[in-house]
Amino acid sequence: MRACIVAIGSEMLTPFRVDTNSLLITDRLNTIGYDVRLKAVVADDVDELARVLEGALAWADLIVVTGGLGPTEDDITRDAVARVFDMPLDVDERIVERIRDRFARRGMTMPEINRRQAMVPRGATVLANPNGTAPGLWLERDQTALVLLPGPPREMTPMLESVIRERLAPKTGGRGLFRRVLKITGRAESDVDARAQPVYSKWTAQSVPISTTILAVLGQIELHLTAQAASRIEADEALEAAVRELQDALGPAVYSTDGRPLEVVVGDLLRERKLTIAVAESCTGGLLTSRLTDVPGSSEYVERGVVCYSNRAKTELADVPEALIVAHGAVSEPVARAMAEGIRWRSGTNIGIGVTGIAGPGGGTPEKPVGTVAIAVAADEEVRVRTFQFLGGRDMVKFQSAQSALNMTRVMVAKLQSGREWAERR
Amino acid sequence: MRACIVAIGSEMLTPFRVDTNSLLITDRLNTIGYDVRLKAVVADDVDELARVLEGALAWADLIVVTGGLGPTEDDITRDAVARVFDMPLDVDERIVERIRDRFARRGMTMPEINRRQAMVPRGATVLANPNGTAPGLWLERDQTALVLLPGPPREMTPMLESVIRERLAPKTGGRGLFRRVLKITGRAESDVDARAQPVYSKWTAQSVPISTTILAVLGQIELHLTAQAASRIEADEALEAAVRELQDALGPAVYSTDGRPLEVVVGDLLRERKLTIAVAESCTGGLLTSRLTDVPGSSEYVERGVVCYSNRAKTELADVPEALIVAHGAVSEPVARAMAEGIRWRSGTNIGIGVTGIAGPGGGTPEKPVGTVAIAVAADEEVRVRTFQFLGGRDMVKFQSAQSALNMTRVMVAKLQSGREWAERR
Repeated sequence: MRACIVAIGSEMLTPFRVDTNSLLITDRLNTIGYDVRLKAVVADDVDELARVLEGALAWADLIVVTGGLGPTEDDITRDAVARVFDMPLDVDERIVERIRDRFARRGMTMPEINRRQAMVPRGATVLANPNGTAPGLWLERDQTALVLLPGPPREMTPMLESVIRERLAPKTGGRGLFRRVLKITGRAESDVDARAQPVYSKWTAQSVPISTTILAVLGQIELHLTAQAASRIEADEALEAAVRELQDALGPAVYSTDGRPLEVVVGDLLRERKLTIAVAESCTGGLLTSRLTDVPGSSEYVERGVVCYSNRAKTELADVPEALIVAHGAVSEPVARAMAEGIRWRSGTNIGIGVTGIAGPGGGTPEKPVGTVAIAVAADEEVRVRTFQFLGGRDMVKFQSAQSALNMTRVMVAKLQSGREWAERR
Repeated sequence: MRACIVAIGSEMLTPFRVDTNSLLITDRLNTIGYDVRLKAVVADDVDELARVLEGALAWADLIVVTGGLGPTEDDITRDAVARVFDMPLDVDERIVERIRDRFARRGMTMPEINRRQAMVPRGATVLANPNGTAPGLWLERDQTALVLLPGPPREMTPMLESVIRERLAPKTGGRGLFRRVLKITGRAESDVDARAQPVYSKWTAQSVPISTTILAVLGQIELHLTAQAASRIEADEALEAAVRELQDALGPAVYSTDGRPLEVVVGDLLRERKLTIAVAESCTGGLLTSRLTDVPGSSEYVERGVVCYSNRAKTELADVPEALIVAHGAVSEPVARAMAEGIRWRSGTNIGIGVTGIAGPGGGTPEKPVGTVAIAVAADEEVRVRTFQFLGGRDMVKFQSAQSALNMTRVMVAKLQSGREWAERR
């Protein structure tokens, strides 16, 4: 089943905005077995939209159009469809009433221009919009179904879900594409692929075929598994087995198999074990603590973070001895270790993290170039320290440093017991 | 002049990736007077690309295609173009030599498959690729120019720049679209539009017409001015006058007219005045300090940041009296003020910021619902404190809080003199 997605709106043809609705639509259509073969963004222009629709009608089983259903002259989707399908546009008075009511509930009078939103190509089915004035439309011609939805995601999303549930899914009888994502950090893409490829290459020929895509994004690798199956139950079984095989091949570098980001995985581990954490960070400048606190409920386990950019702040906030900084330099393993131990002691938490490095673009030396970062994690009687050499600009060094600190924490915390005993020590 | 941009690649038809090349291409084409009317993303499929190209040849003055020029069977751009233009594909031995040399320089032998990249539709002009093996191609038919460029941005960008400079700009004689962006924070979109609209509505009819678009993005409003002019000099003159008029109408809410983000504007003000800053933040969880330290060279003025998530941390790191927290609650103006003054005193900086609030989703009460945030900035003898009520999820509350804290800092610092005298006090 081949699908085409069309977004209408001149603002998405400027250098400032991309169409993102199509990502959600693609995800939902894939789930019921539609393969998206073409995406287009068209200006608010009847001729141009009509041309794109004519083209897609020649091959697509489904065309989803978003946007251009507002009340103004610029909103041309209805006109283009009426022209291509050669159907007259009638004003549907029931829709006018619904729009009028919507305005009335807010104590407003419906402007006359909104009658345009009640125009329906004769023979089309109206799709209710619970969150806005513009109704959607459903039309069919030969083998092709055409769905028109409003552009704002809050209006579009629930309407898409009901079209899929009520009209599209029944046609496919549960068959579709089902996905699973493994997230991996701390290994290079080529290394992940070398280990994973012998595993996943076997799956394309099995009874429930699974295809695998490797995506490298800043600081992590994602393996996207897509199973084509007759039902969710059949897909789940094949995907569970596949995920287990990849986990065996890749080991603890796999930090998530259920979509959770790294900061949530770390937070869940801390919460389960009743452990608390504090951070002393320099080159990450607050990003590490900000990521930890992006997680709802993180105030349960994050006691404090300190961004000790100056040497004085390292000494005052994390008890790093001045002499240590003089002897080894602020960016060094002994200083990272002192930061981790100092902040843990000061804050009375179970875990302490220390990060110190050179984010760039200035500040590098031949011995310690930009991207040199020392990270220490102190937990229980153990302290682990590593020096990394990251590539890329300031943002990338900050992000990768935070990512590596979270990952070292994850690996250490996973081995720890509940933290009650520490709480008593404090 | 009407342009169409086509991106080739099945990965951009998944739920995981959008085409972003087209934003840069749109920006550059606008500058030389091309209006982008259609963007399409097509799978690695000869038939489908051929169909899209046929459609665009009927109306476009320029078609830019990115991607599908690699060496594998999946790379189908050359084949589709040869079919649509009805030109045979010849292997260009000079290109083969260049690719072979490129491999040889890295001590590698060119795989035979790379000969595919040397296939050229007969009559097409080859465009050199300084950063990769895939050359670009230039073809013309009737009124339409077709440019084929590789997909990776590092290869595509310099090739696009030279096509524009050498082939497209000469056709337009300097005429084009020229842009300026005003960034505004601390006002609602409707308020900005009410003040700006009477100003910008006059400009569409002047000799150098300027059109204005208002874009509301998280925590700020942008006004994009686009002048259509015969030359950059003419455009600059009209745009400078337009920017001045809008600044008069909108006052100090305009924080940037040259593209700088808010944290850079604040950083530049601090550096010019030789002032230093420290932050005590709670609900923003490190994000405020992280944004301040995103700016290269920020270690000159950021002395420290503390994320005092627990009450104990507020007292230990920013000297907030326990009694004050008990009397007013951790989220309150007196506590924000104490945090700003405390961190300023502790760190010996000129400026101190305190932020305390409820980021959600939990922790709200009827008196202090989720999104309640108190922000204080202490500078010189003055402390300003405000309570905000932000809408949206945890991320949005964090971002808007950091944005408002930066903006309050900007307004106060702009009025201050150089900070040398404070440095002596310390």
